[in-house]
Order: sequence, then C-alpha cells, then structure tokens
Amino acid sequence: MKNQKTIWPGGTQLAPVPVVLVGCGDGKNFKYNCLTVAWAGTLSSNPPMVGIGVRPERYSRGLIESSGVFTVNMPSADLAEKVDYCGVVSGRDVDKFAKCGFTAIAGSKVAAPVIAECPISLECKVRHSLSLGSHILYVGEVVAVQISSEFIDEKNHFDVTKANLLAYAHGNYISLGETLGTFGYSVKKK
Amino acid sequence: MKNQKTIWPGGTQLAPVPVVLVGCGDGKNFKYNCLTVAWAGTLSSNPPMVGIGVRPERYSRGLIESSGVFTVNMPSADLAEKVDYCGVVSGRDVDKFAKCGFTAIAGSKVAAPVIAECPISLECKVRHSLSLGSHILYVGEVVAVQISSEFIDEKNHFDVTKANLLAYAHGNYISLGETLGTFGYSVKKK
Repeated sequence: MKNQKTIWPGGTQLAPVPVVLVGCGDGKNFKYNCLTVAWAGTLSSNPPMVGIGVRPERYSRGLIESSGVFTVNMPSADLAEKVDYCGVVSGRDVDKFAKCGFTAIAGSKVAAPVIAECPISLECKVRHSLSLGSHILYVGEVVAVQISSEFIDEKNHFDVTKANLLAYAHGNYISLGETLGTFGYSVKKK
Repeated sequence: MKNQKTIWPGGTQLAPVPVVLVGCGDGKNFKYNCLTVAWAGTLSSNPPMVGIGVRPERYSRGLIESSGVFTVNMPSADLAEKVDYCGVVSGRDVDKFAKCGFTAIAGSKVAAPVIAECPISLECKVRHSLSLGSHILYVGEVVAVQISSEFIDEKNHFDVTKANLLAYAHGNYISLGETLGTFGYSVKKK
C-alpha cells in the first residue's frame, strides 16, 4: 500500500546530522579536550549561531562552562574511526589529541583548541545554555572560522564538497555523495 | 604547508546539515503549510528534542506559534528540487502541498501535517523558543515518528540507509554515500 506509515514512539531519528569534534579547554590553553557530538546544528544565520547538545556528566561540560567557549571541528570521512573513538572514551581517562594524533592549534578569537586535521573549524562563544533533559544545549555564536587553505581556490572560494565531510544517521558514519542541486535551482530559468 | 589555515569571519559553515520540510498548520487541520529548513538538529536524546531555526517573518512562524506543534519531514534525495522550491516560495502565495504533489496526512499525536512522500517524519510539540537574531529557535519534543512501512523489515528494524535521505552543505543539496562504520566500531574487537 503506497504511503503506508508505521508509527513509532518519539526518538532521535532526525538524519542526516553532522558529526563533529567539539574542542574545549580551560580557557588558558593548558588543559584541553575534544568530544564527538552529533547533536549539533546551525540554528541562526545572523549572528551565526550553532547549537550543541552535551550530556551533563561529560568531562567537557565543565571546560565549556568555565571557559565559555568551544570549537566545532568538522572531520573528513577518513577520520571516521577517530571520530567514533572520541565519542566513546572520556577525556578524564585518555588524552584524545595524543591518542588520535590530532594537532591542537589556537583559536584566533577564542581560547579553545582547533583541530588542525579537520578541514573546517568554527570558533564559538557560548551565548545561551538550556537544560533539555539528557543533554544541555549550548548555543554558540560563531565568531571565526578556520578552513584548511588547501581547499580554498585563488578566488578565495571554499568548495565544501572537496573537504569530504562526514555525516551521521542512526548510528552510521556516512560519507557524502553526489551534489544534486544548489539553493534556488528549482526556480532558476533553465 | 601542511595544516595551514585561512581565517574567515564567523558564518553558517556547519556541514553537512539535514534539510527537512517542516510541516505546520492552524492546529485544526484546516490550514497547513510546509517550509524547508536546514537550520535543524537533534539537541537531546531523552526526551528526544529537535531544534529548528525559522525566520520570524516566515508565514509558518504564526502557524507554529499558535498551534504549538510542527512536524519534521525528511525527504529522500529524489525530492531535492521540491525541497528547494519549498524554501524559496512562501505559503502566503502558493499552496506548496498542491504544487509539489505532496500528500498531507494527519499527525498521530499532533495536529500538524505529515508529508506522506517523506520516508521519516517527526511529530513535535514546541517546548522552548528562543530569539537568536535572524532566526527563532523552536525546540520541539519528538512525541511520535512516522516511517514509511516499506523501509521497515520483518524484524521491525528501520534501515535509514535505504531511505536515501538528503543532506545540505553550503548551498548544495547532497545525497548520502557509503557507510564507513557504526557507533562504537573503533573500540570493538576486530
């Protein structure tokens, strides 16, 4: 039967979602950590705002709250296994940067670590936080972006499709496929 | 030079993000609309919460605020052109369901339209709203999920990779590619 639906209880089925490495630290570049977050999204354009959902028992929670800043580092698909690892171990027990061979570079506007191996990183200042139950939502204003220069052409254009970013859907780490169209293409004159 | 970075001002570069059709109405199934939203994400697991960013001048804003409910409908990649269209025209001017050939079915728990042609739809009740500047963030609790039965196997398992969902990155509508791993695979015994 066409369009037949099965009804399930509410869940976290929104997909695909980004899967990012959130960088955070003590605000003094002395202690830092990263954790994998798939509960993330852009929430507003101007000022640019992203939201991340973090479990309150996470080691990174204290670092984000005391420093008031974090970074959102988008991994390329070849980092999938390291991304998974940074989501299942805690910074209380493991130096994830050392274990994964990640290079921490300084934020340009925030005192939180940018992961050099990720093609795009957002530097964020916490503007709101909201307890939602299992996760705390931190809304961060994106105050600067770091992009691996190799992906920027001579016209200063960044082609995201070359960065080979990673998506997440229902427990699967998924690479991106074909570009099917660009914003506004449905109403452009053919 | 390896790991050289170019620093840009803050922007909406988080990618990939979902690109969904948000369904909304007057709460009486008399007037309804849908709009395309890419500023969306899962924000918490328990209770399951999603966030959507909607420009306050949007026609749908009034429908969401007066009804207190919305749906999040995930399109398959073959709907990309219709998804684009529903983001560039307004429900004030166009009956998008009619124009796109979408079938509105009733929510099981909320009085907002579910788009039958989308393989997964979340039924949401607004729990928080927060003005972030250009967009209002609505945080919705997912109270039910409708899944096209054709994607559910005899063990009641839904394989999202068969639904061929659509992602969005920097203005590009992108299909999903290969599954590279599943949650926890980095620490499982090989």
